[in-house]
Amino acid sequence: MADSTFRVNAHSANPTKTIVKARSFQMIIDEPTELGGTNEGANPVEYLLAALSGCLNVMCHVVAREMNFTLRSVEIKLSGTLNTDKLFGKETTERAGYKEINVEITPDADADKETLARWIKTIESRCPVSDNIANPTPLHISLK
Amino acid sequence: MADSTFRVNAHSANPTKTIVKARSFQMIIDEPTELGGTNEGANPVEYLLAALSGCLNVMCHVVAREMNFTLRSVEIKLSGTLNTDKLFGKETTERAGYKEINVEITPDADADKETLARWIKTIESRCPVSDNIANPTPLHISLK
Repeated sequence: MADSTFRVNAHSANPTKTIVKARSFQMIIDEPTELGGTNEGANPVEYLLAALSGCLNVMCHVVAREMNFTLRSVEIKLSGTLNTDKLFGKETTERAGYKEINVEITPDADADKETLARWIKTIESRCPVSDNIANPTPLHISLK
Repeated sequence: MADSTFRVNAHSANPTKTIVKARSFQMIIDEPTELGGTNEGANPVEYLLAALSGCLNVMCHVVAREMNFTLRSVEIKLSGTLNTDKLFGKETTERAGYKEINVEITPDADADKETLARWIKTIESRCPVSDNIANPTPLHISLK
């Protein structure tokens, strides 16, 4: 299959609030007041976890179909821990982003434990957003 | 500063549509009909670009303040290219996620080119979502 290119355009409504357009969809990203924001949407690192959950859901169903078992639904809980020192320009040895991300998937499915263990491994190895988080991705940021 | 933990909970409304809760906020992620979805929201890889745009906006303003120039707003265009073969389980040497991500930032600012070049470099090095995309992040996916 050919490559697919995805594009989004964003602009700052204020220093913490970002309005994003992807095709016909609008997303509003903001920071909570504790982080100096206007709290009109989930924040960027919550959006990152959301992106991961959406991709995992699709993969859960794609792989269940391939493995021929019934998957009615999934619940996905995600969490990540980061230290804000680097973000705020303090002297630190911490990285800027999440140090690790933990995901717990609860399937409502007709499959035994061994099948579900293989299912989870396959999902992780083929999920685009998991790949972009777990492995390095070249990022080119330029000024216009 | 202490570490901060962020959490989101998601569930599948259908095999492509994911409903995500982050604090009081709800996000709807879906796939377009061409990708087998019900097209009720931006898709997971668009959400990933959105997360990056929101984080860059915050960093643009944090760093401009530190560098003492006026930044009125930014426009951010993001794109990424991926190949869907791995996702769909085809034999391939392609990775699952974006091969690279390109970002173009247009500032409305009172600063010369050299200042803005330093500004962009600082933003990139301290942006949490940029870090999680550009560098490996341990991802633990478990079955409940």
